Amino acid sequence: MKKIGIIMGSASDLPAVEKAMTTLDEFNVPYEVHVYSAHRTPVEVKEFTLAARENGFGAIIAAAGKAAHLAGAIAASTTLPVIGIPVKGSFQDGMDALLSTVQMPGGIPVATVAVNGSENAALLAIQMLAIEDKELADKLDAQRKTAAEKVLRENKEIEDKYNK
Amino acid sequence: MKKIGIIMGSASDLPAVEKAMTTLDEFNVPYEVHVYSAHRTPVEVKEFTLAARENGFGAIIAAAGKAAHLAGAIAASTTLPVIGIPVKGSFQDGMDALLSTVQMPGGIPVATVAVNGSENAALLAIQMLAIEDKELADKLDAQRKTAAEKVLRENKEIEDKYNK
Amino acid sequence: MKKIGIIMGSASDLPAVEKAMTTLDEFNVPYEVHVYSAHRTPVEVKEFTLAARENGFGAIIAAAGKAAHLAGAIAASTTLPVIGIPVKGSFQDGMDALLSTVQMPGGIPVATVAVNGSENAALLAIQMLAIEDKELADKLDAQRKTAAEKVLRENKEIEDKYNK
Amino acid sequence: MKKIGIIMGSASDLPAVEKAMTTLDEFNVPYEVHVYSAHRTPVEVKEFTLAARENGFGAIIAAAGKAAHLAGAIAASTTLPVIGIPVKGSFQDGMDALLSTVQMPGGIPVATVAVNGSENAALLAIQMLAIEDKELADKLDAQRKTAAEKVLRENKEIEDKYNK
Amino acid sequence: MKKIGIIMGSASDLPAVEKAMTTLDEFNVPYEVHVYSAHRTPVEVKEFTLAARENGFGAIIAAAGKAAHLAGAIAASTTLPVIGIPVKGSFQDGMDALLSTVQMPGGIPVATVAVNGSENAALLAIQMLAIEDKELADKLDAQRKTAAEKVLRENKEIEDKYNK
Amino acid sequence: MKKIGIIMGSASDLPAVEKAMTTLDEFNVPYEVHVYSAHRTPVEVKEFTLAARENGFGAIIAAAGKAAHLAGAIAASTTLPVIGIPVKGSFQDGMDALLSTVQMPGGIPVATVAVNGSENAALLAIQMLAIEDKELADKLDAQRKTAAEKVLRENKEIEDKYNK
Amino acid sequence: MKKIGIIMGSASDLPAVEKAMTTLDEFNVPYEVHVYSAHRTPVEVKEFTLAARENGFGAIIAAAGKAAHLAGAIAASTTLPVIGIPVKGSFQDGMDALLSTVQMPGGIPVATVAVNGSENAALLAIQMLAIEDKELADKLDAQRKTAAEKVLRENKEIEDKYNK
Amino acid sequence: MKKIGIIMGSASDLPAVEKAMTTLDEFNVPYEVHVYSAHRTPVEVKEFTLAARENGFGAIIAAAGKAAHLAGAIAASTTLPVIGIPVKGSFQDGMDALLSTVQMPGGIPVATVAVNGSENAALLAIQMLAIEDKELADKLDAQRKTAAEKVLRENKEIEDKYNK
Repeated sequence: MKKIGIIMGSASDLPAVEKAMTTLDEFNVPYEVHVYSAHRTPVEVKEFTLAARENGFGAIIAAAGKAAHLAGAIAASTTLPVIGIPVKGSFQDGMDALLSTVQMPGGIPVATVAVNGSENAALLAIQMLAIEDKELADKLDAQRKTAAEKVLRENKEIEDKYNK
Repeated sequence: MKKIGIIMGSASDLPAVEKAMTTLDEFNVPYEVHVYSAHRTPVEVKEFTLAARENGFGAIIAAAGKAAHLAGAIAASTTLPVIGIPVKGSFQDGMDALLSTVQMPGGIPVATVAVNGSENAALLAIQMLAIEDKELADKLDAQRKTAAEKVLRENKEIEDKYNK
Repeated sequence: MKKIGIIMGSASDLPAVEKAMTTLDEFNVPYEVHVYSAHRTPVEVKEFTLAARENGFGAIIAAAGKAAHLAGAIAASTTLPVIGIPVKGSFQDGMDALLSTVQMPGGIPVATVAVNGSENAALLAIQMLAIEDKELADKLDAQRKTAAEKVLRENKEIEDKYNK
Repeated sequence: MKKIGIIMGSASDLPAVEKAMTTLDEFNVPYEVHVYSAHRTPVEVKEFTLAARENGFGAIIAAAGKAAHLAGAIAASTTLPVIGIPVKGSFQDGMDALLSTVQMPGGIPVATVAVNGSENAALLAIQMLAIEDKELADKLDAQRKTAAEKVLRENKEIEDKYNK
Repeated sequence: MKKIGIIMGSASDLPAVEKAMTTLDEFNVPYEVHVYSAHRTPVEVKEFTLAARENGFGAIIAAAGKAAHLAGAIAASTTLPVIGIPVKGSFQDGMDALLSTVQMPGGIPVATVAVNGSENAALLAIQMLAIEDKELADKLDAQRKTAAEKVLRENKEIEDKYNK
Repeated sequence: MKKIGIIMGSASDLPAVEKAMTTLDEFNVPYEVHVYSAHRTPVEVKEFTLAARENGFGAIIAAAGKAAHLAGAIAASTTLPVIGIPVKGSFQDGMDALLSTVQMPGGIPVATVAVNGSENAALLAIQMLAIEDKELADKLDAQRKTAAEKVLRENKEIEDKYNK
Repeated sequence: MKKIGIIMGSASDLPAVEKAMTTLDEFNVPYEVHVYSAHRTPVEVKEFTLAARENGFGAIIAAAGKAAHLAGAIAASTTLPVIGIPVKGSFQDGMDALLSTVQMPGGIPVATVAVNGSENAALLAIQMLAIEDKELADKLDAQRKTAAEKVLRENKEIEDKYNK
Repeated sequence: MKKIGIIMGSASDLPAVEKAMTTLDEFNVPYEVHVYSAHRTPVEVKEFTLAARENGFGAIIAAAGKAAHLAGAIAASTTLPVIGIPVKGSFQDGMDALLSTVQMPGGIPVATVAVNGSENAALLAIQMLAIEDKELADKLDAQRKTAAEKVLRENKEIEDKYNK
């Protein structure tokens, strides 16, 4: 199976990507995690990215805050799908990171998820791998069913408590 | 090759997805286009989506404006990757559509591109198919080179005109 | 008397709807509360909604956060009045939920109240039932008087304390 | 049948409410339209509103722009349901009017629709009257079907043109 | 000397106007404070306002949050200058109250100060009274000098600590 | 009678203050108009302002766009009331000018009106002068009546046209 | 004298930098202009930037729109001062470009000017060169005087026309 | 070596500029720090600024919040480069200060850094001095290398912990 790359712009972004790692673990999808900054280590960002397809990666998740250029910088050096997680910082709950990630110019897409949406970033990466992997697609369907059942259990509890 | 589904919420969104169609044409990636509204034809949205994987789709592009629920409604009924294009309407240049598309809750990802970013929506879909398709990946790389050359030609013209 | 349906998108939205329940209790207006997610349990949302008028509901209150599609998804499947409560989450104090709830396309209205405005959602539902229910309308008028008297008592205290 | 009151803050808001009138006409729902300004004719706003229930109104639609106080001013003087249409002016596409209309304090609800959402304001008023009017409810359902068919016709045209 | 009226929309707005009271105390400018809600006690707002000039008021300060209609409602019933304080609530740090207060339509001005700017509201009221009151104007000038000296003392301390 | 000073930051702001001049003309309130830029002619701003009270001014209206410092710069050099008109420019309909004008620090008030609200700026200035001028106050009341009558004439026309 | 580099992200940004060129021409400050895209020609951006100091550049001006990474990408590869011009595009008058340019992380500064502020970008670059160049500083002072005189001429015309 | 001036609008802004001082200390760049308010001590702001070039300053850093006029007021009185730090206050995380600082009119540039971006303000000032100071430029390059190494060490730790 192809691997997923997880790149965060700073070690302080770790809490914002942990759910991505646990989600990939749940689906047994292999991944590698790195701290590379678009601005402080542009060389390493580029080296990792240019070799990513050849090194067995199927998609790259990038998490960064503020003027979040990381996902775009990665997307500029590969044609693998790049998934951007805008990280909530101290300005407008991450509106700066959201716009810096999602408003990419034509030609260089970044698949943007919600601010701090690391679970969805991982699920999106898995969905991409599952396009040609029936078993993985079945796991995704099963997980959806589990999520629905959890909602219905919550519903049952609240119905029992409040509806006469 | 898997097909790409392109769903727009209203026929008036056609100009906002045309570039997605021409981009897929350029890469010879097959697609189907439909007008289904999350609010006015929820049954058709669901029918199309539930059968999409089985019907040979690899990813679905959804374009909608205002309280843009279309991409999310589609994502709720499939585990195929769903790409959302927020369509610019008459309120704040599409900020309503952007937030309605990107701020999805955990469990149901939508890969969001820029407001009216239909070219990137198509490229993202192609990148997803190219994960397991070497030939398509090579075409993406070639197109990048072409895009870079276009920039460099523009650069040459402007250098010639302005630099002494 | 018709019942009011209260649907929340997640059990975590309970605090954001409790005031709706206590307000309906105050007016002895019957209601049912459920947890149904537009994205994780779209089938249950639809089943509940399609049968709602027949099942004796007069209006439906829907509370959801982030890309808050719940009220719109309900409104797409019924012509009962649907009241949307945008729930404050971790992004811009619920601006995402507000725009996702209020900016509905023509044809599918959602009666939107303030972010976390669950008391007003309940009052609005009661006002709708009171259009044809003189007794209920009288209760609403009485409650307004009570609210005004509370303001005037506060006024009295502050006048006594600060005006010489 | 109860009447719907349509109040606009200024004669210049007429284009923003015309679709409300034609929609009510379509459903044969009686209405009265007035120009009363919350700020320039507060006396008339109050007189109309205090007598509205007694005068046979079932709901009131209020349209205003900028610091749009009209819907709130009306809601302060009646317990009939009040529907607010934020009118798009020259500042941020009506964000000022939207927030002034929707962010009402607890106790005084305003059912807010989208900026310039006059069709939905009318439909919402009709839905309220239809709670106890089976015939009107059936008309609403019929109109939904018509709207869906229109989408499906558009879909057919676009499918025929673009899908091979 | 004319009195200043201070009206708050709710007793919970008291902390947001206290600095206005202490500032008026400092200048020995007489004032009256009241809690009147534009929406819950519109009658009292109107009664107070219509009689304000006759009752010896020179200007009215109004503080309210959310869809802050209070200043505008007061301004609609008097031609005394009305000063609006947008009160910071739980949505976007008071952006809703700011726009609801400042974006008044032509003909009905509200002199708006910063969100929670109660000191400036009082100073503005005093400045208005000082137009024809030389002694009060002198006090305002003296207070400016005092404020400047405070800055210069802070400057001295920081210079002493950090400049070598 | 005291004069009103009208200062604009650039000659291009003239259209944004013309209504202020015609409104003052209507009330026969004397005024002087100047173009002084807070940034390009800070010396002239200061000279004018420091002498303004002595030169017979009762209040100063300042109109500026973008990072609109003009009203604040004037307010820093006088204790006359200063009225700020945020001028709509090419960024977010004047949101930059609005925040730069209204968010003044404690101690230095600026009475801010709506973006491009020059009529209200003039009316506010007149209201200030009218605090101690019964005749001017009467004119303000008369003008209000005229404005109300205009609304009621518009109302009559629309009632005649649309109400059967 | 050191040269100024002007880099635009796309040839379509030319109108947004032309005033920078004419301003540098006015001061006889040498410059070079290039079209290099952070995303489509990242290699050329890097090559130009890494060699810029050695090639005689004193500062670099970068103009880009949307998710404007260009200034940041340049700043990541040089310690020359980098001046960012956010270019107004079709979303919120360039708010996306402004936040993407100004909200740089600690360690990698970008000197940001107003949206489309190309004249100021050039003046800032000249100011930097003038720190150690008395003659250039004198020219800047002279130009300021000229600008002030232009304001005062405008003032004279408006005074003559409107003040009696 | 030229000195850097650091001006804050209020002593309460000290925490927002401390990192600027420690950064200048690190590079042995001399500086002076002052508290001068654009609104409460305009005379001192002007005196300091007019004499700044003559007094050996090479650039001025100005930090202020709310309607942050300080950087602009300084820039109006000198042609030295002025660096503006928008200080985060209690409204929208400093959006008011950001727009008041960055949206300067043509002719009077302010080099704006991120909200509370005091480290970058200092680095930018050092970069300006380093244009003609090879040794300082080398220090900047060395510090970049150190910053990159820190990222790579963090990367190493996270790789060791999470990659199998």
